[in-house]
Amino acid sequence: MTREPLSLFDTTLRDGQQTHGVDFSLDDKRRIAQALDDLGLGYVEGGWPGANPTDSDFFDAAPKLKNATFTAFGMTKRAGRSAANDDVLAGVLNAGTPAVCLVGKSHDFHVTTALGITLDENRENIRESFAHIVAQGRETLFDAEHFFDGYKANPDYALACLHEAYNAGCRWIVLCDTNGGTLPDEIGRIVGAVIASGIPGANLGIHTHNDTENAVAGSLAAVDAGARQIQGTLNGLGERCGNANLISLIPTLLLKEPYASKYDIGIPREKLASLTTVSRMLDDILNRVPNRHAAYVGASAFTHKAGLHASAILKDPTTYEHVVPEEVGNARVVPMSNQAGQSNLRKRLEEAGIAVEKGDPRLGQILDEIKRREDQGYAYDSAKGSFELIARGILGQLPQFFDVERYRVIVEKRRNAKGDKITVSEAVVVVNIAGERIISAADSFYADSEADQGPVHALSAALQRDLGQYQSLIDDMKLVDFKVRITNGGTEAVTRVLIDSEDGQGRRWSTVGVSANIVDASFQALSDAVTWKLIRDGAKA
Amino acid sequence: MTREPLSLFDTTLRDGQQTHGVDFSLDDKRRIAQALDDLGLGYVEGGWPGANPTDSDFFDAAPKLKNATFTAFGMTKRAGRSAANDDVLAGVLNAGTPAVCLVGKSHDFHVTTALGITLDENRENIRESFAHIVAQGRETLFDAEHFFDGYKANPDYALACLHEAYNAGCRWIVLCDTNGGTLPDEIGRIVGAVIASGIPGANLGIHTHNDTENAVAGSLAAVDAGARQIQGTLNGLGERCGNANLISLIPTLLLKEPYASKYDIGIPREKLASLTTVSRMLDDILNRVPNRHAAYVGASAFTHKAGLHASAILKDPTTYEHVVPEEVGNARVVPMSNQAGQSNLRKRLEEAGIAVEKGDPRLGQILDEIKRREDQGYAYDSAKGSFELIARGILGQLPQFFDVERYRVIVEKRRNAKGDKITVSEAVVVVNIAGERIISAADSFYADSEADQGPVHALSAALQRDLGQYQSLIDDMKLVDFKVRITNGGTEAVTRVLIDSEDGQGRRWSTVGVSANIVDASFQALSDAVTWKLIRDGAKA
Repeated sequence: MTREPLSLFDTTLRDGQQTHGVDFSLDDKRRIAQALDDLGLGYVEGGWPGANPTDSDFFDAAPKLKNATFTAFGMTKRAGRSAANDDVLAGVLNAGTPAVCLVGKSHDFHVTTALGITLDENRENIRESFAHIVAQGRETLFDAEHFFDGYKANPDYALACLHEAYNAGCRWIVLCDTNGGTLPDEIGRIVGAVIASGIPGANLGIHTHNDTENAVAGSLAAVDAGARQIQGTLNGLGERCGNANLISLIPTLLLKEPYASKYDIGIPREKLASLTTVSRMLDDILNRVPNRHAAYVGASAFTHKAGLHASAILKDPTTYEHVVPEEVGNARVVPMSNQAGQSNLRKRLEEAGIAVEKGDPRLGQILDEIKRREDQGYAYDSAKGSFELIARGILGQLPQFFDVERYRVIVEKRRNAKGDKITVSEAVVVVNIAGERIISAADSFYADSEADQGPVHALSAALQRDLGQYQSLIDDMKLVDFKVRITNGGTEAVTRVLIDSEDGQGRRWSTVGVSANIVDASFQALSDAVTWKLIRDGAKA
Repeated sequence: MTREPLSLFDTTLRDGQQTHGVDFSLDDKRRIAQALDDLGLGYVEGGWPGANPTDSDFFDAAPKLKNATFTAFGMTKRAGRSAANDDVLAGVLNAGTPAVCLVGKSHDFHVTTALGITLDENRENIRESFAHIVAQGRETLFDAEHFFDGYKANPDYALACLHEAYNAGCRWIVLCDTNGGTLPDEIGRIVGAVIASGIPGANLGIHTHNDTENAVAGSLAAVDAGARQIQGTLNGLGERCGNANLISLIPTLLLKEPYASKYDIGIPREKLASLTTVSRMLDDILNRVPNRHAAYVGASAFTHKAGLHASAILKDPTTYEHVVPEEVGNARVVPMSNQAGQSNLRKRLEEAGIAVEKGDPRLGQILDEIKRREDQGYAYDSAKGSFELIARGILGQLPQFFDVERYRVIVEKRRNAKGDKITVSEAVVVVNIAGERIISAADSFYADSEADQGPVHALSAALQRDLGQYQSLIDDMKLVDFKVRITNGGTEAVTRVLIDSEDGQGRRWSTVGVSANIVDASFQALSDAVTWKLIRDGAKA
């Protein structure tokens, strides 16, 4: 049976950016676009070219996407000028993307109250904007803002707005529940009415918000009623309560009936195994704690606490699991069962190239040590580098390459000779390597830095400046990111630092340090990063 | 028109307790039961008497409830003994609650695999258990575990189990989607089939889980199909991805059609105003950070970041709000962001007690300055303290209380006299106040700290140790949180530090600093925090 295409449109980089506290950098946008493309999303909406410098820069050097249609967002032309003469619209078109999505009004109240123009002017704005873009050979989408509220208030006018876009050649008419107040049942009914008005379901999209906790269900209801595009975001990011969560929708559409047999969403089922990683990556970029209870990808999504459940799970996992956790890249957790923990652990060690026999008692020791450190505030979900070092330590596979005898770092703010206020960081590190004592210093201007980059960079530079016999191995290594979070270690607040490092061979690895002192936590993570690199490069102690 | 009763059954204290990491104390249970009763819930399920000491103690001194029917949970009797002779069931009944809810199997696979008994034995267990309790004059509920999966596998057997309970006089037959994998549409269809089999909708309940992010929608679908009881938890607490979230369902049922006109859920509409407080209370008990994006009650649920939205909200809040925030005890927030406009700005200034005329050209200057700084990496969504200082600076309302001439902070790791490795942070700050030069020092052990808390605390302590004439005003102020992230300032990576401070009057405020140097960024945020406090306390420069 051939499956009907069902299009997925991601707006993490546009509507997701409306989330309170979210402000993507250029590099964030590039990483997310790449991840969306790798996952197999049909459309990636990158932002609004011209609305702010980051979005403009992002479109200026558009990401190379293999699968997804790169899309620019904007709004229908303003009244009183032609589409060709609207500079805001021109800014969007100048981005040169294959697809353009324009938001426009379809609720009479908003036309007259928020825009302050006549109902006919709004229809003309829609008509002419789409005619203008379609004439340029671009694919077009119309985000019909407040469509459901508009339909309930004035169905004729709301439908007329859709038809203006559709008749002008717009490919996708997207029905937006902008305020998030429409319930799934009503969404399904109204989508049916739109189709009955003459716009085919194959041209209809749905864009919901989670203000009643029904965004996912509303999207499914629209598909059930005939719509063939879903707009949403990773992890349900978005203004207020967020948009429809694609991370929840994708596995439902791929694994559950009637969707799995009926629709082709363009994502092969085996790609699902990367879903948990993609979800965590976004939280990582946002420096957010991942939601443990997220559908499919949450750390607790397959955690079985109840005793009766846990014992049944050991007999047959389907007793208390609706899907196989590995299929979405997640894992079963049975907190009381050391057995389940050990098989998970062996899997992780294998990924790091460390083979341990099933039943080896050191597996239990590693689990105990990880647990003890997690109680102190460490986190090993992303810090796989540090995790590997702990396991190696217990397995007797951790060479002692160097010992840090002491370090000191100074940060000073003062006036320089010209009277300008400047900041300077200076670090001294003393290490012992094979009986030799090496003292190195670096200041914040070391290593081509234009500005003072602070104590962590200064320490990193000092540590990596002279590692004796290992120096040639770490010359190509650099600190690329660090993240800091206050967390609990036992009853005390402590600082957790996660450091990402990269080397010339394209490796990227993460390490973690925990201390009440942020510099000390950073230094632990730095030391781990250097040790991991030396192991990977085959150094001998 | 008379509204039909729709019963709400809370299982926060029983199924909610299955959440990974949740372990209610006796006092927690009492507080939550009271809050549920005050809110007007129909049933409060307190736990499983006899299953653990806390639950037993809780039932021994049962809370006095005004509205809710207090309910004990247990399971149907085991095979091979009579209901009267089952000690586990006796433990449940001995709690003497007006209502008793028993879980039992309805999926043939679970009967044979998990219980290891015959299908007929299971039917008998259901029948005899309910006959036994009904004979005691208690109200009864049957949680039909895995009912939806069971119905799909063997509809005749699943229905037969329900009818055993119903024919034995059980008041509520609760259809449980235990594994959370059934989608709303299918739930509605199967509830319809149960009613068609002869059990009236007025005797049917629904119990969903959020494993596909559809627990709320699944509950509504069951009501639409005829069920008249919803089981759920506060904030959707519960094993794996949680149960149906009553905090989301209650306002939908009270405020939205067709529910508002059709059903009486026993909660008067004016009680809704306590909803946000009840939700936050649970997070407080669990020591969890409340979900900012929770439907209705999240801190961001009525936060309008997009500039176009914010300006429309100021004209008419219904433009971008599906309900009135105050009605659910929440509040509207219009933060600053790089897409915001002047109307948004005036509203924020008003909140800080600064009145500016509409059209004042300085509004544009403030926006430009905010935008310029956001391009450097600052973020003012949450850092309202620093935002206010920028506005005051441009409006000429920012006194120069103190000037920091220089500072220096040292972090050192070394061995102490005993040979233990220790970390010490030490800061020196020099400020000028009204022509007087004050030098203060603090180390990381200052201010009752047990462990070295690092350079930011040391600087904070030094800065706040002697502020001359202002010292008495800042004595009650302390640093309570700091958050760090790497972001882009122009083309360079910079560090953004957000600091939360508190004072003795219960104020809490956030300030921000940005620099390539984390210590410098922290110091900026610290200085802003002190300045904000001095302004609030009415200090004169």
